[in-house]
Amino acid sequence: AMFARLALCSRLPSRIRQSNGCPASIRAYSQVKFPRPHGKSFAHRSELKQAKRIVVKLGSAVVTRDECGLALGRLASIVEQVAVLQNQGREMMIVTSGAVAFGKQRLRHEILLSQSVRQALHSGQNQLKDMFQSWRQEHAQLLDRAYMFDCSRQIKHCHTLHELLRMNIVPIINTNDAVVPPPVPNSDLQGVNVISIKDNDSLAARLAVEMKADLLIALSDVEGLYDSPPGTDDAKLIDIFYPGDQQSITYGTKSRVGLGGMEAKVKAALWALQGGTSVVIANGTHPKVTGHVITDIVEGKKVGTFFSEVKPAGPTVEQQTEMARHAGRTLASLLPEQRGEIICCLAELLTEKKEEILSANKRDMELAIASGRFSQPMINRLSLSTAKLNSLAIGLRQLAVSSRDSVGRVLRRTRVANNLELEQITVPIGVLLVIFESRPDCLPQVSALAIASGNALLLKGGKEAANTNKILHQLTQEALSIHGVADAIQLVSTREEVEDLCRLDKLIDLIIPRGSSKLVRDIQRAAKGIPVLGHSEGVCHVYVDSEASIDKAIDVVRDSKCDYPAACNAMETLLIHRDLLRTPIFDQIIDMLRTEHVKIHAGPRFASYLTFSPSEVKSLRTEYGDLECCIEVVDSMQDAVDHIHKYGSSHTDVIVTENEETAEQFLQQVDSACVFWNSSSRFADGYRFGLGAEVGISTARIHARGPVGLEGLLTTKWVLRGEGHTVSDFSEQGSMKYLHENIPVPQGSFS
Amino acid sequence: AMFARLALCSRLPSRIRQSNGCPASIRAYSQVKFPRPHGKSFAHRSELKQAKRIVVKLGSAVVTRDECGLALGRLASIVEQVAVLQNQGREMMIVTSGAVAFGKQRLRHEILLSQSVRQALHSGQNQLKDMFQSWRQEHAQLLDRAYMFDCSRQIKHCHTLHELLRMNIVPIINTNDAVVPPPVPNSDLQGVNVISIKDNDSLAARLAVEMKADLLIALSDVEGLYDSPPGTDDAKLIDIFYPGDQQSITYGTKSRVGLGGMEAKVKAALWALQGGTSVVIANGTHPKVTGHVITDIVEGKKVGTFFSEVKPAGPTVEQQTEMARHAGRTLASLLPEQRGEIICCLAELLTEKKEEILSANKRDMELAIASGRFSQPMINRLSLSTAKLNSLAIGLRQLAVSSRDSVGRVLRRTRVANNLELEQITVPIGVLLVIFESRPDCLPQVSALAIASGNALLLKGGKEAANTNKILHQLTQEALSIHGVADAIQLVSTREEVEDLCRLDKLIDLIIPRGSSKLVRDIQRAAKGIPVLGHSEGVCHVYVDSEASIDKAIDVVRDSKCDYPAACNAMETLLIHRDLLRTPIFDQIIDMLRTEHVKIHAGPRFASYLTFSPSEVKSLRTEYGDLECCIEVVDSMQDAVDHIHKYGSSHTDVIVTENEETAEQFLQQVDSACVFWNSSSRFADGYRFGLGAEVGISTARIHARGPVGLEGLLTTKWVLRGEGHTVSDFSEQGSMKYLHENIPVPQGSFS
Repeated sequence: AMFARLALCSRLPSRIRQSNGCPASIRAYSQVKFPRPHGKSFAHRSELKQAKRIVVKLGSAVVTRDECGLALGRLASIVEQVAVLQNQGREMMIVTSGAVAFGKQRLRHEILLSQSVRQALHSGQNQLKDMFQSWRQEHAQLLDRAYMFDCSRQIKHCHTLHELLRMNIVPIINTNDAVVPPPVPNSDLQGVNVISIKDNDSLAARLAVEMKADLLIALSDVEGLYDSPPGTDDAKLIDIFYPGDQQSITYGTKSRVGLGGMEAKVKAALWALQGGTSVVIANGTHPKVTGHVITDIVEGKKVGTFFSEVKPAGPTVEQQTEMARHAGRTLASLLPEQRGEIICCLAELLTEKKEEILSANKRDMELAIASGRFSQPMINRLSLSTAKLNSLAIGLRQLAVSSRDSVGRVLRRTRVANNLELEQITVPIGVLLVIFESRPDCLPQVSALAIASGNALLLKGGKEAANTNKILHQLTQEALSIHGVADAIQLVSTREEVEDLCRLDKLIDLIIPRGSSKLVRDIQRAAKGIPVLGHSEGVCHVYVDSEASIDKAIDVVRDSKCDYPAACNAMETLLIHRDLLRTPIFDQIIDMLRTEHVKIHAGPRFASYLTFSPSEVKSLRTEYGDLECCIEVVDSMQDAVDHIHKYGSSHTDVIVTENEETAEQFLQQVDSACVFWNSSSRFADGYRFGLGAEVGISTARIHARGPVGLEGLLTTKWVLRGEGHTVSDFSEQGSMKYLHENIPVPQGSFS
Repeated sequence: AMFARLALCSRLPSRIRQSNGCPASIRAYSQVKFPRPHGKSFAHRSELKQAKRIVVKLGSAVVTRDECGLALGRLASIVEQVAVLQNQGREMMIVTSGAVAFGKQRLRHEILLSQSVRQALHSGQNQLKDMFQSWRQEHAQLLDRAYMFDCSRQIKHCHTLHELLRMNIVPIINTNDAVVPPPVPNSDLQGVNVISIKDNDSLAARLAVEMKADLLIALSDVEGLYDSPPGTDDAKLIDIFYPGDQQSITYGTKSRVGLGGMEAKVKAALWALQGGTSVVIANGTHPKVTGHVITDIVEGKKVGTFFSEVKPAGPTVEQQTEMARHAGRTLASLLPEQRGEIICCLAELLTEKKEEILSANKRDMELAIASGRFSQPMINRLSLSTAKLNSLAIGLRQLAVSSRDSVGRVLRRTRVANNLELEQITVPIGVLLVIFESRPDCLPQVSALAIASGNALLLKGGKEAANTNKILHQLTQEALSIHGVADAIQLVSTREEVEDLCRLDKLIDLIIPRGSSKLVRDIQRAAKGIPVLGHSEGVCHVYVDSEASIDKAIDVVRDSKCDYPAACNAMETLLIHRDLLRTPIFDQIIDMLRTEHVKIHAGPRFASYLTFSPSEVKSLRTEYGDLECCIEVVDSMQDAVDHIHKYGSSHTDVIVTENEETAEQFLQQVDSACVFWNSSSRFADGYRFGLGAEVGISTARIHARGPVGLEGLLTTKWVLRGEGHTVSDFSEQGSMKYLHENIPVPQGSFS
């Protein structure tokens, strides 16, 4: 027999109050509607957000700890997640199999455990009760009774469960294997094997299908399905399992679930899938993820194995990465002229196929405008034109010429010993992931950089430019195919979550975000195992020294702030030497800023010098990104340097002075990627630096720093050619001596 | 009145069984004894491990969620942590103030909440009960009753609490502010202000002191104390608070705790401290850390603010980093000759002060041997000798000469426009953290590298070499002081946890682990925000081609495997062309390996070719690090390349062949840091490459790859010198044109 031991209950308040203590996901989803009528299973993880009715099945390994009794913390966090999803307006059900793990122990233990489960969940109930009472009393309606439900007999007549769901109650069905339920004679689902209800997995599957649930989340101590036995060299977790694929199904070695158990799980999942319920099998026992495993799955994140009836036409992102790396190796082995040909071919296609590109872009623009979600500047960035395409093509042709010397360049050559020669040569980094927003012109630019540097590339563009990106990517592959490397550049589906991509640390070597500083910051946070080339902030300073030329100061400050205030290399803080206060140069700078409509914020020292001060800054580290700046007073060049070190972001800092010694001191001391004398901070840019092509600007101190050209996409490798040399030849008793003679290499610029 | 509503109870089993399901910390500490008698408070966080009696105070913000009722998940994880600590043999007490948050609400709510707390903890009790029953029945003894305790009146006579602790029970005192306890007339502690028991913080402090607890952990929703108002530019969390310091005390802006509340917390903490109980104030509401905040604190990790009466003589590690960065900037601005002088001075001191060094080393050796915790190879690594010191000194003098050209070298010079010149120059990275095990000779070597490259350095050595490291560091500072930069190299206290150091991502620019591959892996895992220069594995291949010379094959394979099998550049897998099977070359290789006592493991294909095969490998990715290797058969050079890409670690891979074309194909295609032709894999080494000094070997693809010399400690900066140039001068309407002419730079090697 099977007992629904109790029911967590609450009506959803008509308006959920936002509060700091509630998980962010409540806020994020409180507006979501779930209009999807029950029908077919979902084809993609990204659609799981739409699941209205969800069954969460907790295996015994989730409910209990090995020999340590009930996993109280885990259960509590699961109850919390279920509450969050219920409060989004979904209908949640929990199936537990708490007694299974103790099945072979004494009955006394089972009773203890059942009590514990009941008590733990009872507390959860009180929590919900209390929560709802705190919200809107008039909408809270509570049930508090043990509810018996003989599921094995009445599974096709689950009126009571439906009734509970209708009342916005979370039913918890606590199964007990100790008493084996009677077998069900026949299923009424066509073409599906009859399954017996001997195990909790098929029981949960059966319940989910009978209840027309959209999603069944089965948590146990296995990660999901593997394509080879886990622990072997090739084993990979299967992200999406299609019933049609004849993949071999194995299981986690650490699992208490035997092969039979795993087969039962898969069988049950396939059965549910055919009944129209999507299934995710995942591990619910990892301490670090248990607190959000259920909500992550519903949000579409790649957790465990997702069962889908629909096999998508394209490859998975992992397969795309493999294809890209493979073709990328061929790309890297081409002659530089061949890579140049590909880039020139792409340039030609951009003008040749301009009608197709512009018409795809028009579709994106119309959709974007219709959606009402985009501001005019965003729409402008999305838009392409004949002029834009032409200038893109010109840029690509220049790159094709200037990048001839990038891959395979010899940086160093050493005669280690007689007939033992060492070379250090430039090679591509491997597989790049470029994430870009809005601007579709990014795609051919970035692709050309990858081609020139022999790197494989994954492109992840914004949904709003999907049509434009698609045609531009097709043209890129067309160009690549002239040398048989079409696969080297892959466009990642817009369905893929950026966060999931940032976790592919075995597959991707470098991430380059192109977009807002928020995008960069988010990616830096998410991509913990993969280096990120980019800068998240630019708090640039211009220091006007006591010996500054009045004209240069005006010109440099104006250009640094006003030329393009939103740029990361625009001035945010103007440091003025104390001696200049109440001199013509100071007045002229202030007048100029007023004329240019720059809003001035006063640093604390500057404010103290003024009778009527503008608003004082909240932080000296602010990046305004607009026609605004902070002005602060410093006592000396040294004081300016200290201020920059304390509050700056090590991006670009400028001194304006006629004193060469002061200038050189400043240039030497300031520890930023770019340090300028009597020049606008706006010169901090790959094109202006003459790097040929700009990959980005980096404020990291490792690998690439400041404006980054193609060399930021290269690494090196060491090639040693000998004649059977061994290191023991060089030991004290050995016959050889190290020479370590530098062999001159052809002079080339460091780009 | 105050009530101990119930008591979690259990006798500690005499032997705790290890099981997979139990948190690792149980295993780690199950052997720990707590012999420390109650007396003075602890001076350092690292001593908190010794705390026997611990009071955990849970503020209302921890127990409840904002308007969402009881924080069930949090409470459960706290109960679990307390159980872990109790099971380590500590005496735990919990003070909750669950009703506080609801004090202003209706009494009905309070009752609900109290019930919830009781039920949540009751489940916890059952869990413990069950856990102990699963362990050793005869030692489990259970109490299950509500226990009333009027603490406000009988605080000096806590017989009952003592009795509970003696019985190995966790008392839980649930306070209720709604009923204000009568004030206590006087404290019997000398020199301490009388505090009233109006707030739970002082109540907990009072209880902790009266109960002679070693540690009071006060969890609320504030991070701890700040040195400036949080949210302002300078605000930093205070790690250790000394009552003597007249630091301004502020509080977390997000907190519900007002300034008064924070003052009360601090007052209570200081009061407890003076009574001999150490205190940590920390945030117990962060979702990501709540699950281990209490155990982290007891393990000595830097969480919240630790109150200590003892102000340590030295600076904190954060202060050390600041001092190092500051002095490092001066070091970087010295002339190359001056840096060379410092290194030579250090070399001299190593021989001059050799007696002192060796006597300190002798003390370390004796302690290490006496501890019995070290194997003979480890003892050997720890030991210094006159010979070792002499060769160290020779190495340093060579470095002083060879590194002259490292900092400030011009890599690129561009005439951007008339009178606008751009230079890219080498600069130090900033602050390095080098973590090394055992070998104290690492200290002067690494210090010399840092000095030569103008970097500031934090050194973290092993406890076992503490005395040797101390004297070596003193000598290093003595050498640095000849140019006034003694602070540029800092020795971090052995008390600092590596994991805490790896989290200082705003302060440290690069971490270099020198030690076992386990150390490197651990640090790569811990240092998520800071780049790590190192390699965690070396699965190196030698491929013997069908056209290999028999002598070269024998020599290269022998040297690659046998010269030093534990090295990361030793061969792990021998790939043999199929055509060589059952030829003399194959037999001779096998004979040689047998003669050298190399244990052979067969790859699956190799095994299939043999009638009697050696044991088949479990994984083709194994790093044996010993006189063992895997042999696998491949069909072709291309097949070998594919095998290496699939199973290798991109460290060093070798081809042995007489066919130059095949060799060049291999060298071009294999995507590893080092690719060799007819040479031993053991050449992959900074000294053998002639890099002058070896910083390490990197298998990363970013920044530095393969053996890394001094250039791995350098980055670049861009210096632009103009005459008031602005980018608007270069616009279409502007007067200037970009020239981007390369200006030749003096040829220098890329090191």
